[in-house]
Amino acid sequence: MAETRQWRLASRPTGEPTRENFDLVTVDRPEPESGEVLVKTRYQSVDPYMRGRMRDEESYAEPWAVGEPMGAAVVGEVVESEADALDEGDVVTGNLLWAEHAVADADALRRVDPDRGPVSTALGVLGMPGVTAYFGTLDVAEPQPGDTVVVSAAAGAVGSVAGQLARLSGARVVGTAGSDEKVDWLTDDLGFDEAINYDETDDLSGAMAEACPDGIDVYFDNVGGPITDAVWPLLNVRSRVAVCGQIALYNATAVPTGPRKLGKLVESRARVEGFLVGDYEGRWDEALDRLSAFVRDGRIRYRENVVEGFENAPDAFLGLFEGENVGKQLVRVGDPDE
Amino acid sequence: MAETRQWRLASRPTGEPTRENFDLVTVDRPEPESGEVLVKTRYQSVDPYMRGRMRDEESYAEPWAVGEPMGAAVVGEVVESEADALDEGDVVTGNLLWAEHAVADADALRRVDPDRGPVSTALGVLGMPGVTAYFGTLDVAEPQPGDTVVVSAAAGAVGSVAGQLARLSGARVVGTAGSDEKVDWLTDDLGFDEAINYDETDDLSGAMAEACPDGIDVYFDNVGGPITDAVWPLLNVRSRVAVCGQIALYNATAVPTGPRKLGKLVESRARVEGFLVGDYEGRWDEALDRLSAFVRDGRIRYRENVVEGFENAPDAFLGLFEGENVGKQLVRVGDPDE
Repeated sequence: MAETRQWRLASRPTGEPTRENFDLVTVDRPEPESGEVLVKTRYQSVDPYMRGRMRDEESYAEPWAVGEPMGAAVVGEVVESEADALDEGDVVTGNLLWAEHAVADADALRRVDPDRGPVSTALGVLGMPGVTAYFGTLDVAEPQPGDTVVVSAAAGAVGSVAGQLARLSGARVVGTAGSDEKVDWLTDDLGFDEAINYDETDDLSGAMAEACPDGIDVYFDNVGGPITDAVWPLLNVRSRVAVCGQIALYNATAVPTGPRKLGKLVESRARVEGFLVGDYEGRWDEALDRLSAFVRDGRIRYRENVVEGFENAPDAFLGLFEGENVGKQLVRVGDPDE
Repeated sequence: MAETRQWRLASRPTGEPTRENFDLVTVDRPEPESGEVLVKTRYQSVDPYMRGRMRDEESYAEPWAVGEPMGAAVVGEVVESEADALDEGDVVTGNLLWAEHAVADADALRRVDPDRGPVSTALGVLGMPGVTAYFGTLDVAEPQPGDTVVVSAAAGAVGSVAGQLARLSGARVVGTAGSDEKVDWLTDDLGFDEAINYDETDDLSGAMAEACPDGIDVYFDNVGGPITDAVWPLLNVRSRVAVCGQIALYNATAVPTGPRKLGKLVESRARVEGFLVGDYEGRWDEALDRLSAFVRDGRIRYRENVVEGFENAPDAFLGLFEGENVGKQLVRVGDPDE
């Protein structure tokens, strides 16, 4: 019987995850039943939200079980079909597994058109991160022409799209990122008005104030922690904070503390709102149609950071917390049959 | 020439304000010019927001100047009129001074109808605190039937009205307060479903979880600090937090710290919004009309805590930070001419 490989959760991390939390196992290749297909993974996504799944806590999604394969968005090819809707050779995307092969309901997959561009974009700018940026920016943060918008983790998969969308809305956009390479990409290629390398700044609050002389009208927050602390005092009257993620806090081993922030909201009448892309399922096509038009005409640019080889998937994931990725972090999964 | 007395800001407090920060001075009674009236104060309001005015920081209102009289809402009687709109003997309310007499533009005053109820209510349930509760509850927090609503400082001038409005909206209402007397008032007289005496509770988080078995859909926050920390983990999906004030933090001498809270917003998709009653000026009549109907038919009840004598105004103010007031804290100003 044919085999395949899966990454399984070996143990729950305390603090920073390590390679030891992951287990590479070889298993029998699953077989599709009626209505299902077998998908061979070409690209696997790793995302910050996965850190939450490693925790044994109920949240907006079930925690991963120790000893079981972990979930991931993938782009892959249908290699066996027991479903009318999909044929062998179709390229699809969906929430499958950290695995070289996985079986899925055809209904749970979306077809990816290879003529529309690199299929890997279905995991990035034209996938969950892009759609997250789209709704977080346009639906929650609502930047207006002339607004000053700050995006944290601006060189990441979500932040880079959020910042460009805010710029398309006529806002002045300031990004934070952790390397000069990222900062250059933001200002030179993506059209950010300013970018702050937080790793090279002793005085983050001062740098933020300097970059935002008219205060901050919108904060698209992917990281939390000290960057958020620097943004907060600058929030303008009726400003909006869209809380997308808090990656700076995900590996904390105790409840992280920081300056109490809610008093500022009274004075500024600011609105702070968390959101999840999962709540926008019914509007996914709207986002993808508009994002792909923007990508086609060059108004939205993207980068992908590709780690080669399925066996390196945990490293790709761990790199997210080191800020190693410029743009979307992917794992390219070689063809095990080749 | 006739005289009057004023309280002036003697010095800015560090931390908890004290009597030494206030100076009682006798001055010539001012005379109204054309369009103005002279008002003799009957009741002066003291409010938590005044702590912010004592600070030398730009906020939504100018700081008070050291050596100058301080501002306050008062109810008083027109004793001299140089304005067509108001006559001697009219009872009015407006933002005047910590003073036995003050001059004001007739346009800046609102007439109080003594037949509608005790004129002092124009500083409480039918004044700024009631209107604050009205818009904070109905416009910002938006409680729905069946929601669990938590109100902090629930026995205060704003909280007591906010909780009763939430109850009228069909919500289950839980209040926090700092004495058994207050807790009894909330549950026995105001119809709160539960009330927590935070001063008698070792485990505030446990008490909050017990009082809110279905989580929290709305939090009307007047205090901040540890009570807010106990509320936060219980916030339900799509819950709303209306931030009205943070009195627990007003006397802090350093930036107060606490658990970082924004991550919870992602999971819960909660909305946190600060507000100021000043933003609702155009809708003040709407609020007063509805609040006075509720007060008339007994659906909203109120209490006033009256300190006698203008010379005791600073004590009335300082008592706010000790939680001494049940309901609205007022200073009754005797007639200096009697």
